[in-house]
Amino acid sequence: MKLKKYKTLFLDYLKQEIKVKEPINLYKPIDYILQIGGKRLRPILCLKACETFSGDYNKALPAALSIEVFHNFTLLHDDVMDHAELRRGNQTVHKKWNLNTAILSGDAMLIMAYQFLEKYNGDRYKEIMKVFNTTALQVCEGQQYDVDFETKSDVEISDYIKMITYKTAVLLASSLQIGALIGNATKQDANNMYLFGLNLGIAFQLQDDYLDTFGDVNTFGKRIGGDIIENKKTFLYLKLKEVISKEDAIILDKLSNNKKDSQEKIDAITALYVKYNIPQFTLAEIDKYTEIANLSLNKVAISSKLKENWIKFGNKLMQRTV
Amino acid sequence: MKLKKYKTLFLDYLKQEIKVKEPINLYKPIDYILQIGGKRLRPILCLKACETFSGDYNKALPAALSIEVFHNFTLLHDDVMDHAELRRGNQTVHKKWNLNTAILSGDAMLIMAYQFLEKYNGDRYKEIMKVFNTTALQVCEGQQYDVDFETKSDVEISDYIKMITYKTAVLLASSLQIGALIGNATKQDANNMYLFGLNLGIAFQLQDDYLDTFGDVNTFGKRIGGDIIENKKTFLYLKLKEVISKEDAIILDKLSNNKKDSQEKIDAITALYVKYNIPQFTLAEIDKYTEIANLSLNKVAISSKLKENWIKFGNKLMQRTV
Repeated sequence: MKLKKYKTLFLDYLKQEIKVKEPINLYKPIDYILQIGGKRLRPILCLKACETFSGDYNKALPAALSIEVFHNFTLLHDDVMDHAELRRGNQTVHKKWNLNTAILSGDAMLIMAYQFLEKYNGDRYKEIMKVFNTTALQVCEGQQYDVDFETKSDVEISDYIKMITYKTAVLLASSLQIGALIGNATKQDANNMYLFGLNLGIAFQLQDDYLDTFGDVNTFGKRIGGDIIENKKTFLYLKLKEVISKEDAIILDKLSNNKKDSQEKIDAITALYVKYNIPQFTLAEIDKYTEIANLSLNKVAISSKLKENWIKFGNKLMQRTV
Repeated sequence: MKLKKYKTLFLDYLKQEIKVKEPINLYKPIDYILQIGGKRLRPILCLKACETFSGDYNKALPAALSIEVFHNFTLLHDDVMDHAELRRGNQTVHKKWNLNTAILSGDAMLIMAYQFLEKYNGDRYKEIMKVFNTTALQVCEGQQYDVDFETKSDVEISDYIKMITYKTAVLLASSLQIGALIGNATKQDANNMYLFGLNLGIAFQLQDDYLDTFGDVNTFGKRIGGDIIENKKTFLYLKLKEVISKEDAIILDKLSNNKKDSQEKIDAITALYVKYNIPQFTLAEIDKYTEIANLSLNKVAISSKLKENWIKFGNKLMQRTV
């Protein structure tokens, strides 16, 4: 099935399940954030994983919704923490309403995410809940590490990989694992689907770092150099810090301390990245995690055709056409 | 068993289960809010309910902890929304740390509350989860109604009862229901324990309203007249609005519009309450809900001795000696 088709099916289900009810001021912002778009990547992963093992995606719809509602809860609260004014080209909830609404509607979304999982029963229910609980807490931990890194001077690449793993990759991974479990996959197959998603998620985030500096402005969708202006401790930056000469490190620090939003700063730091082969290092790292992902996929007891399909899906993800 | 004993047992379990771990900045505020005290009323209800049906409270310890962590999550986020600076005589988390910490540590607590329930299995687990999900969402809805009422001019007493039911009573009620379920009570007995707690919770909140104006400053613990100064739409205020003459209503509005913190305002509005027999109305309402609570308790298939014990407990609660 085409990916667009999963998205359409999911959106139909979302519209059917998410209704504005009393108290309106609690549920309207929830409807708003859930309807203003998004790639719906996590629900697609969940539905497709279920279909891979059972031939049917329908049983995974409540879990797909649960995961999307959870994801949007994190966006809602993260936007507050980041003082973000826009989300998917629309006003963020705390801007459109206010801080208290963003907090309380977000809280309700987290509970709703749990409530949608009530559609499952018995041991399966418990299995899903355990994956969901662990993942949800890791996402919070990842967000905390991200906040901590802003003021921490000695962030290692391994710290960074842990942060993006928790903040981003675990939810992609458990979307696959939960979908697989609902599709009656064995525990081992579901675990390998988790690892496939986890490593693909890390590769995806590293590519995000890469594209932020070296992407094509026409296809990336965000401004090129945004991370450099914000002095974000991305993989590129941390790798550069590892290999840079003492002399150039002084130049880099000076450039970083310049808080101005200037093309000059972007160009100068990009030049340092190029000088020290950071693009190549990064692409090699992306390849590494993609390969690890594919190794896990290979262990799953499904047909080669289905595996090829997942690899194609991973590639599409990497080309950001999803 | 004495109530103090339940509290001690619970606190031992809490200290054993709640540990500060990495990332410290996420878990330290959680440890802080959970350790700065509190009556631990909900865990005591849960443990005692379990013991009532099974003779043993131990199995209910994880649920008691889950409920207390959930309750403290709501306090953490409510304190942000209310701009509260103190909680149990200590700095609130958003004051001691910052807004983002209060949001994120609160989120993690909600997830931890769910995680503690993983100690239960099978149908019992699912039953507990359903009660917990429904209750948790109602608590959010109650908080939203409370926020809405601040700017709503036409709040009815029935709206108010619904608000305090959701915001306060349902969690007390489900503490009993979940404890009973863990103690292998029948569904019907567990439901009646829920109704016992629900109506006792409403009575408890109404008494809080009563004591805020008519309490003894030495035993109430808060300042007398605080609700009047803040123009809170309490049961007393809403009942007065129902029965007041047109002439006195004009006087009341004038008094309410005076935002100043004055003893004069407290005395004048208290005098209106007395003039219209609001204390008597309120005490009658408290009696009504206490009686409804006791009717539900009477239906439970436990010994008269155990029932008497629960009624004594309810009375203690009403005398706020717990």
